[in-house]
Amino acid sequence: MTNTTKNVYDLETVMLEDATSEMVIIDQTLLPSETVFLRLKTQKEIWEAIYKLRVRGAPAIGVAAAYGIYLGAKAIKALEYKEFYTDFISLKKYLASSRPTAVNLFWALDRMDECVKRYKEKTVEDIKFELLKEAHKIKEEDTWVCRSIGEYGLTLLKPDMGILTHCNAGQLATSKYGTALAPIYVGQEKGYNLKVFADETRPLLQGARLTAYELNKAGVDVTLICDNMASAVMKNGWVQGVFVGCDRVAANGDTANKIGTSGVAILAKNYNIPFYVCAPTSTIDLNCASGKDICIEERNPKEVTEMWYEKRMAPKDVKVFNPAFDVTDEKFITGIITEYGIAKAPYNESLKEIFKRKRGMV
Amino acid sequence: MTNTTKNVYDLETVMLEDATSEMVIIDQTLLPSETVFLRLKTQKEIWEAIYKLRVRGAPAIGVAAAYGIYLGAKAIKALEYKEFYTDFISLKKYLASSRPTAVNLFWALDRMDECVKRYKEKTVEDIKFELLKEAHKIKEEDTWVCRSIGEYGLTLLKPDMGILTHCNAGQLATSKYGTALAPIYVGQEKGYNLKVFADETRPLLQGARLTAYELNKAGVDVTLICDNMASAVMKNGWVQGVFVGCDRVAANGDTANKIGTSGVAILAKNYNIPFYVCAPTSTIDLNCASGKDICIEERNPKEVTEMWYEKRMAPKDVKVFNPAFDVTDEKFITGIITEYGIAKAPYNESLKEIFKRKRGMV
Repeated sequence: MTNTTKNVYDLETVMLEDATSEMVIIDQTLLPSETVFLRLKTQKEIWEAIYKLRVRGAPAIGVAAAYGIYLGAKAIKALEYKEFYTDFISLKKYLASSRPTAVNLFWALDRMDECVKRYKEKTVEDIKFELLKEAHKIKEEDTWVCRSIGEYGLTLLKPDMGILTHCNAGQLATSKYGTALAPIYVGQEKGYNLKVFADETRPLLQGARLTAYELNKAGVDVTLICDNMASAVMKNGWVQGVFVGCDRVAANGDTANKIGTSGVAILAKNYNIPFYVCAPTSTIDLNCASGKDICIEERNPKEVTEMWYEKRMAPKDVKVFNPAFDVTDEKFITGIITEYGIAKAPYNESLKEIFKRKRGMV
Repeated sequence: MTNTTKNVYDLETVMLEDATSEMVIIDQTLLPSETVFLRLKTQKEIWEAIYKLRVRGAPAIGVAAAYGIYLGAKAIKALEYKEFYTDFISLKKYLASSRPTAVNLFWALDRMDECVKRYKEKTVEDIKFELLKEAHKIKEEDTWVCRSIGEYGLTLLKPDMGILTHCNAGQLATSKYGTALAPIYVGQEKGYNLKVFADETRPLLQGARLTAYELNKAGVDVTLICDNMASAVMKNGWVQGVFVGCDRVAANGDTANKIGTSGVAILAKNYNIPFYVCAPTSTIDLNCASGKDICIEERNPKEVTEMWYEKRMAPKDVKVFNPAFDVTDEKFITGIITEYGIAKAPYNESLKEIFKRKRGMV
């Protein structure tokens, strides 16, 4: 594990260097103080990087897991399929234990497993090559999804506009571009000169630590604000659009995202500012009727009362309510931007149309 | 300067112990980690306590200055008026230099000065006694104002209601009761069992450090939340009223208060929750036509990027917008609670009525 420092825009969040058998990631636990790239070689190093959130964000974890198990498989000595597959399954179990609640981790590992089984008649050497292609494909697909969201999102923007975003749905959470930040990066490439306001996003400050960091590094005009300053920024007329990511979108358009998102949506409505959710179709759950069916996780009160678990900022025995997410009612959402186009209300119909397009039926 | 620890509800924010010639204050710079009461004797100690924000909040500073200059005057050796007054003016200048932007500081010192001049025909011993009475009166008046706001505010509440508040407009900022928290304390005395949600109030966390602290100490059911959680708390149906303080109220009812207040007001309107501003008439400026005439101070970006100026939480060179206040439009304010009653829209008329009542004209 060697460390080097580079400009974040020159390098993606997760990258494979097949020639050296190394995976290169940005150590997100050190941001924003230090930009350190880690070169991971062993399965233990990869496991530790996922476990300690050095790489985070569902899509980015999926890509890291795919490259990780490929590097592990590449090092397997066995030449016979059966022996190879036994070793492969051990690797899979080991990496799957790094973050037991990360759905994308299992999804990526299962997909790599399917790949091995699909090519079981081939030589082990050929199977390893198929695994490399599959891992690249997972990353390319994620990059395509984000890029497509960026392109669709950009159709809603004009040069010099002000954009507000909440939490981090940027390239640090994905292979590249991000979801909510994708229209901003695509706009940056095209000289749009967008002005971004980043909510710091208490309690864990993903906006301050990650969004402000990656936009700043990419040369985007970004201004950091506390969450409670969004109303003042909107009132000043500095924002013409809000773009946020999402954790889960229900069939009716209700959207679960980082705590605070619903408040931003209500403020945007009040100030007549369009509010957009950037949602890969993988996050849209048509089996979930509405936001009422989405369970909200509550997290450790210490996130609120002790900054970085070091210094106490509130009385010791005070009660705390610390939900990780909130649900934004579909009535506050101007549009849901997916890789297959932009859905508008009524979402029960438009989201189904998006899935038809995905299946090539339209 | 000796330190002792007591329950905050047993002792007021600023107290004079005339027998020992000491002023007792809670050291607010140590909250919420430590509850330390300081016993201040010398002018230097009193000056330092105001300068270092050990005592803060406009009304509390006024009271501390009044008691402070009384203690200084009490120690003056001179027996002749002229000599006494020369020494008194030196004390006044010295204490006035402790916080050159605190209007209440000068107001209280001027009032004490007027008192000396009013009784110039009396003996120095008698003038000192008049100064003691005047300082007590300043404190009693502030306590009466807060208590009255509390009584009027309580008429809007029912037992077991949930209340949300932003920043600290509590007894730590006044002689007693506070403004926004006064209805809650009066309710507590009457067994109302109110459930309070305290916004932490970034960047300086007055809600976490002071509001959660003083309510908790007083045995009020208080739950601390991050500013961006207010929408979720309201959506859950846990809040039936919002009470905030204010820095300045314009003639049309527009209200400047701690940054974030306008956002809370818009959320409250969205969820059909009444939103009340608690405003001593001293903060209502009928010469200020509307919120547009209120200038908003911007503060040091480090308040946002470095927690307690110790640890960096954002990229080093990122732009920051850090306004100290925002203006809440009168259309979001259900009522303005003063010590002379509750004003409702249209405020241009109702606030004038409040001042007529103050002048005893109604």
